[in-house]
Amino acid sequence: MSKSVTIVGAGLVGSLLSIYLARRGYKVNVYERRPDMRKVKMSAGKSINLALSDRGWRGLEGVGITDEIKKIAIPMYGRLIHHKDNTTAFQPYGKDNQAIYSVSRAEINMKLMDLAEQKAGVKIHFDKRCTAINKSTNEVSFEDNLSHAHETASSDLIFGADGAFAASRLNMQLHNDRFEYNQHYIDCGYKELIIPPGKNGEFMLDKNALHIWPRGSFMMIALPNTDGNFTCTLFLPFEARPDEPFGQGEKSFKNLQTKEAVQKFFEEEFPDAVPLMPTLIEDFTNNPVSSLVTVKCFPWTFDNKIALIGDAAHAIVPFYGQGMNCGFEDCVVMEELIEKHKENWDKIMPEYQSLRKPDADAIADLAVANFIEMRDKTADPKFLLQKKIEARFSQKYPDKWIPLYSMVTYSPQIRYSTAMKEGAKQQAIMDKVMDLPGINEKWDSEEVEKIMLSMLS
Amino acid sequence: MSKSVTIVGAGLVGSLLSIYLARRGYKVNVYERRPDMRKVKMSAGKSINLALSDRGWRGLEGVGITDEIKKIAIPMYGRLIHHKDNTTAFQPYGKDNQAIYSVSRAEINMKLMDLAEQKAGVKIHFDKRCTAINKSTNEVSFEDNLSHAHETASSDLIFGADGAFAASRLNMQLHNDRFEYNQHYIDCGYKELIIPPGKNGEFMLDKNALHIWPRGSFMMIALPNTDGNFTCTLFLPFEARPDEPFGQGEKSFKNLQTKEAVQKFFEEEFPDAVPLMPTLIEDFTNNPVSSLVTVKCFPWTFDNKIALIGDAAHAIVPFYGQGMNCGFEDCVVMEELIEKHKENWDKIMPEYQSLRKPDADAIADLAVANFIEMRDKTADPKFLLQKKIEARFSQKYPDKWIPLYSMVTYSPQIRYSTAMKEGAKQQAIMDKVMDLPGINEKWDSEEVEKIMLSMLS
Repeated sequence: MSKSVTIVGAGLVGSLLSIYLARRGYKVNVYERRPDMRKVKMSAGKSINLALSDRGWRGLEGVGITDEIKKIAIPMYGRLIHHKDNTTAFQPYGKDNQAIYSVSRAEINMKLMDLAEQKAGVKIHFDKRCTAINKSTNEVSFEDNLSHAHETASSDLIFGADGAFAASRLNMQLHNDRFEYNQHYIDCGYKELIIPPGKNGEFMLDKNALHIWPRGSFMMIALPNTDGNFTCTLFLPFEARPDEPFGQGEKSFKNLQTKEAVQKFFEEEFPDAVPLMPTLIEDFTNNPVSSLVTVKCFPWTFDNKIALIGDAAHAIVPFYGQGMNCGFEDCVVMEELIEKHKENWDKIMPEYQSLRKPDADAIADLAVANFIEMRDKTADPKFLLQKKIEARFSQKYPDKWIPLYSMVTYSPQIRYSTAMKEGAKQQAIMDKVMDLPGINEKWDSEEVEKIMLSMLS
Repeated sequence: MSKSVTIVGAGLVGSLLSIYLARRGYKVNVYERRPDMRKVKMSAGKSINLALSDRGWRGLEGVGITDEIKKIAIPMYGRLIHHKDNTTAFQPYGKDNQAIYSVSRAEINMKLMDLAEQKAGVKIHFDKRCTAINKSTNEVSFEDNLSHAHETASSDLIFGADGAFAASRLNMQLHNDRFEYNQHYIDCGYKELIIPPGKNGEFMLDKNALHIWPRGSFMMIALPNTDGNFTCTLFLPFEARPDEPFGQGEKSFKNLQTKEAVQKFFEEEFPDAVPLMPTLIEDFTNNPVSSLVTVKCFPWTFDNKIALIGDAAHAIVPFYGQGMNCGFEDCVVMEELIEKHKENWDKIMPEYQSLRKPDADAIADLAVANFIEMRDKTADPKFLLQKKIEARFSQKYPDKWIPLYSMVTYSPQIRYSTAMKEGAKQQAIMDKVMDLPGINEKWDSEEVEKIMLSMLS
């Protein structure tokens, strides 16, 4: 019995999900609000480069498209910290050759659409805005952006994969009693900027690193693109915060209203980047300041035939580089449950949401916490020493200690919720270790090692 | 300069607000989604009687309609606890003649509409569903429920007073970047039931008390109506909770599916009430199970010309009896700010939301906490002893100790947020007092009094 599926949204998760379902013989119609980005250039200025890591790769692997995506991905083996005095410091992300991979959102999305359309049974419809979902008839209504004509898609299953501001989720919010819903914005916004390639097309910074200019209450980051560009993102408070502990409360988008103010701010804060940003003022003026939302909701499934997936179910801030990876992992979990329950959706749907909800909540909270780590702690010698102690211990006792970052990024076999719990335990131990007298000198001693071992058991 | 106002919603707060604004010469058009409840009988079965207390009275006093409302209000001087063994116990709500007043939602709403329409400048339009608010043009769009005709109201100011599921707030959620929004449902639902008057129209329970049948994880309450009825409300978990600490996890609406189950449940749990409820099974079968939501959002004002007020800004659960009182207090605060800023709305609006938001958050949290107090602690001897100690101490040192319930209910000069903070301090002190050895014997001793005085200073 071939079943039919409607997917709302042809973004990263909607496109990948369509491939998974088509492989099982489902007839999949994907409806996308925007025009086909492979034909129409989308308005730029709001993208943050994505960092593909092991959970994401696992999602791509499941449908055999890893090699296709590798072609457009650049490995980053660590953070390259840019200090205010123009010195830099490299902090590896893991051991050996562990890396996260920079990909442009548009490039990977277009590639996934191509791969989806190559599958028999997948059809993507563009410029179709979801206007309603009727739970009793299983019909999704769309309005065509151009003709304003209305149409209806009827199918056995419906997936809402339409992102952080999902129309599908709004529909569930409005028409389901007892729908838990929370949207929260952090008080920082972001602006996209660029470091273009040099005269000969060369990368102007080390292309195999994620560059961070940590400045306490704000930061800039830069990720490489295959064409030699770096996409830079400035994360900065919207408004001045008088209570800012770093005495930088005056640093805010609101206080950068003139070209002179922008120029002065960048020269003071990011002196090594300014010479590499010839269009800085132009980009700063033209590109919008965007906001960063966390969305938590429940339930994710309705009548065992409608499900929210990806950002539509759990939008998170980008600071752990896990938004896309988590969405792709949703697809993996869905695939595993389809297998486990032999396509019995009355069993798949409840288990999908009860399994994934705690993991999505965990990565949402970890992502907010990682903003503080990136913007502030990556420049703190004490924090760096802690990371060194953890790395050393982990190398010696890999079965006893996997650093939190590695659990989240390189260990798809460990659930996000487990990683968060383990990470909290580790932090409690490290708080005590870092308080040991003379830790700066004896950090790599057997004594410290023994203390950690005893606290672990 | 006479200004025009559009109010979305002719509920309790919308109606009262219209009177406040009309008194200042504003031209007020109120649009209500429902038909005129004074002409059309509304579907019943979902109301909980309201308890008007000092903050609410202050709101009514400000427009001189206290006497009108007193006519339809019944004072309740305390809780009358009904135990499972048919014994009862009276717990006064405050000192002397302090009372909260039972009013039926429909009666007070109809009275407020009457009073509003008597004011020059107020017009209420019924059956008008708000479909959109245009911030740039200050226009509110409505669709007529009957003719389906669309119309637009244009005015200087717009108030969203359309309740917990406000269309006005949804509009702000969808069209404002960085709108903080949270809706949360507690896991209990409620069902309306009735204790009708006796043969001669007499009240079948003490009419000057709020009746509670506290049963740990659930409860029933009953409030008097002027016609001799008591409106009963059963608060009960939707579904069984295996982790229920009182071993009553099996008690839930889901487990009351047959008439026999309902009858057995009531006879076991509320034996003294059953004989007073001749239509119990019928009512239980016909009346819906409703849910209980807390809504928190921010901002409440937009461009200094649109404001959310009452439940639209801060829906709370009913367990502190403060939903209406808090909404009426919103009107009082608005009135005070209009006076203070001489109708300069660029000053009124920001101060309104910054002043009221912490108070609304506080009463929202206190209301959830009070559910536990009502359903569980009112039957706990230790809790009752604590209340006795507090009452005694408060009587002797009224300037040093006002019990939390009295601060919230009888002290409109104390902000909800202050009451919550003071209440937490008091609870910390009482935790220590209740742990004193032999407290059951020496609760009214000078020793205990001295300990409390020393902890206070």
